[in-house]
Amino acid sequence: TIVKLVGEAYYRFSHPQVLAGKQVIVTAGGTQEAIDPVRYISNRSSGKMGTELANAASLLGATVTLVTTRPEVQPLPGIDVVSVMTVSQLQEAVESRFATADVVIMAAAPSDFRVAKPATQKIKKVAGQDELTLQLVKNPDILAGLGQHKKRQFVAGFAAETESLQVNAAKKLNAKNVDLIVANQVGQPTSGFNSNNNAGTMFFKDGQVIELPLMTKSQMALKIVQEIGERLQ
Amino acid sequence: TIVKLVGEAYYRFSHPQVLAGKQVIVTAGGTQEAIDPVRYISNRSSGKMGTELANAASLLGATVTLVTTRPEVQPLPGIDVVSVMTVSQLQEAVESRFATADVVIMAAAPSDFRVAKPATQKIKKVAGQDELTLQLVKNPDILAGLGQHKKRQFVAGFAAETESLQVNAAKKLNAKNVDLIVANQVGQPTSGFNSNNNAGTMFFKDGQVIELPLMTKSQMALKIVQEIGERLQ
Repeated sequence: TIVKLVGEAYYRFSHPQVLAGKQVIVTAGGTQEAIDPVRYISNRSSGKMGTELANAASLLGATVTLVTTRPEVQPLPGIDVVSVMTVSQLQEAVESRFATADVVIMAAAPSDFRVAKPATQKIKKVAGQDELTLQLVKNPDILAGLGQHKKRQFVAGFAAETESLQVNAAKKLNAKNVDLIVANQVGQPTSGFNSNNNAGTMFFKDGQVIELPLMTKSQMALKIVQEIGERLQ
Repeated sequence: TIVKLVGEAYYRFSHPQVLAGKQVIVTAGGTQEAIDPVRYISNRSSGKMGTELANAASLLGATVTLVTTRPEVQPLPGIDVVSVMTVSQLQEAVESRFATADVVIMAAAPSDFRVAKPATQKIKKVAGQDELTLQLVKNPDILAGLGQHKKRQFVAGFAAETESLQVNAAKKLNAKNVDLIVANQVGQPTSGFNSNNNAGTMFFKDGQVIELPLMTKSQMALKIVQEIGERLQ
């Protein structure tokens, strides 16, 4: 622990505290949407990237709230952790804290759809019934909502894509009126979900593009948070 | 580690080795069925109960294979771990080892349904499209398959129910031709998924019923495995 404390002190000394005095909200992990009390729809987001972003923001001086579906991925001490499960809970947690925030980084992977009518009891298999149709409805787009209502806040989102990375990221940047989209290609063995490494591209509202070559999620988080901090000066 | 080794030695000494020389397969955790490369359907099974059953069988002298979707829930050293994700993988892992097994305990929660046609690329949200229909098809019933093909093997299954515990368990026992169904009520704050405690009822093929009051999953696993072991003598 001494080593860790000295490490942190050295880190703070050697990295400009570009987020000192700032309130930062980071979201992490994939949400779960119930099918019934037992079954759910989710996605492969592990919460690692979001938690590393919260850590990096804290180390650069910010007061950080981490809204996460994966509280078992523990952030650094001093970070306020809000545990959520569904998109609706995630939305409430972020929107209720948005007015006083300086930066929001949406690294969570909210479910785009939820089950229209979740069953209150476990759905039983019925003999002879070989198919089941699940009717899904669209969830609210939390990131677009923040983009619409933001005043001074710097809002960043992630785009996990399996194809046409750049085109989809640019679309998302404009459609959602946010300040930054970090696009990363998923479905690669070397990076993304559950890996400790990641690679991607930062697309800023002003047109600037910064490549993030393959590195650890911890390094990538620092790079992203530093770039955001410099833009707040 | 010394303490742990001494503890294990004492445990083996104080508990009759009713499974000495037996081959035991235990399955654990909820399976995942892909919707696309990012999204999936799963369930709340944490893999804890199955892993405790594997531990208990090992401590009572068995040679144990744990087929699990949650390898991060680590069993005792000496247990052979096979990591799986889908029902199809779980089925292959169990069936290929069935001929030489003495006991199979199916504590995993296989998805009853899988997505009929998983998408090979991430499904994009389309503006104006507020609904999505997911067509599911029934997965093979692994437990019933084992019941159908079993010779000398003792086959046990679990029934996680939110209602009509006893009726559903008795039905499952007969319909699947297995030797034991352990029924436990889920959706209770004090037991079940992700909790370290559990409660339930054992329904044996011969009509015997044994209540399992609220206890730790580790204690419950020992009780279940002891009962099975005694029936093999």
